Amino acid sequence: MAAVLQSKRDISRLEDYLEAIYNLDSEKGYVSAADVSERLGVKPPTVSSMVRNLTRKGFLEHEKYRGMRLTPAGERVARSVIKRHQVISGFISMLGVDEQTAYVDTEGIEHHVHSSTLKRLERLAEYLRENPQTLKAIREFVEGR
Amino acid sequence: MAAVLQSKRDISRLEDYLEAIYNLDSEKGYVSAADVSERLGVKPPTVSSMVRNLTRKGFLEHEKYRGMRLTPAGERVARSVIKRHQVISGFISMLGVDEQTAYVDTEGIEHHVHSSTLKRLERLAEYLRENPQTLKAIREFVEGR
Repeated sequence: MAAVLQSKRDISRLEDYLEAIYNLDSEKGYVSAADVSERLGVKPPTVSSMVRNLTRKGFLEHEKYRGMRLTPAGERVARSVIKRHQVISGFISMLGVDEQTAYVDTEGIEHHVHSSTLKRLERLAEYLRENPQTLKAIREFVEGR
Repeated sequence: MAAVLQSKRDISRLEDYLEAIYNLDSEKGYVSAADVSERLGVKPPTVSSMVRNLTRKGFLEHEKYRGMRLTPAGERVARSVIKRHQVISGFISMLGVDEQTAYVDTEGIEHHVHSSTLKRLERLAEYLRENPQTLKAIREFVEGR
C-alpha cells in the first residue's frame, strides 16, 4: 500500500511540473529551471532532478543553457491536467465557494479524481450552465435562503 | 511549502487512524494494534508509533494488553471524518459513478475538501434528494441520454 501511495504522489508531482512548465511557456515563451523552482516553490536541485526524470520519460526536451520545452506527449498530459483543474474549480465555484477556498480545494483534490468522475462533474456543470433556473434554485438552497 | 504538505499528510494519516479505530470499535467492541495494522495495511511498529502520538495528542486512551479506545475528542474527529466521507461518497455516487470508483475517489479527496465546500456539497446532495425530477434530468444529461 505504501508503494501505491508513493507512486500516486510521484504522479501528482509529475503532473504539477508539466502543468507549471506549460503555463510558464504560455506566459513567457521560455522556461528556465529557475522559473520552475520559483513557480512550484521547490529548490533548484529538486527541479534539476525532476527535469532529468521528465526528459527520460519523454515529456520534456531540455538543452543546457537554452531552457526546456514540453514534447507533444508532455503537452498532452499538461493540457489534460489543466482541463481537469478547470473542471473541478469551475464546479466548486458554481456552488458559491469563495475563490481562495476553491483554488486550495482544487489543488488538493485534482490528482485524486477518476476520469469518469471528472467527466460527470463536467457534464453536471454543463447542465447547470444550460439550466440557469436550476442553478439559481440550487444556489439559494445551498446558501440557506 | 514542503513543511505544509508534510503536515497536511500528517493530518490525513491521523484522520485515517481515528476513522479506522472508530469503525473497528463499532464493529468489534475492542481494538488491538493488530486490528489497526490489518485495516490500514501498515506495519505494527508504525501503528505503535502512531498510537503513542494519538495518545499524546489526547485522541486515544491506550492500555497495554487491553486495547485502545478513542477519547471524546478522538471520537468527535472520527465522526466528522466519517461524515465527510459519506457526504463526498454520496455526492459522487449520485452522479452515477460506479461504487468502486466512488470509493477510491472519496479516499483520495476526502482530506482535501474545505469544510465550507463540504457543507455546500452536502446541501447540493440534499437538494437533489428533495428534487428527484431535477436529479433525474441531471443523471440523464450526464449519461448523455
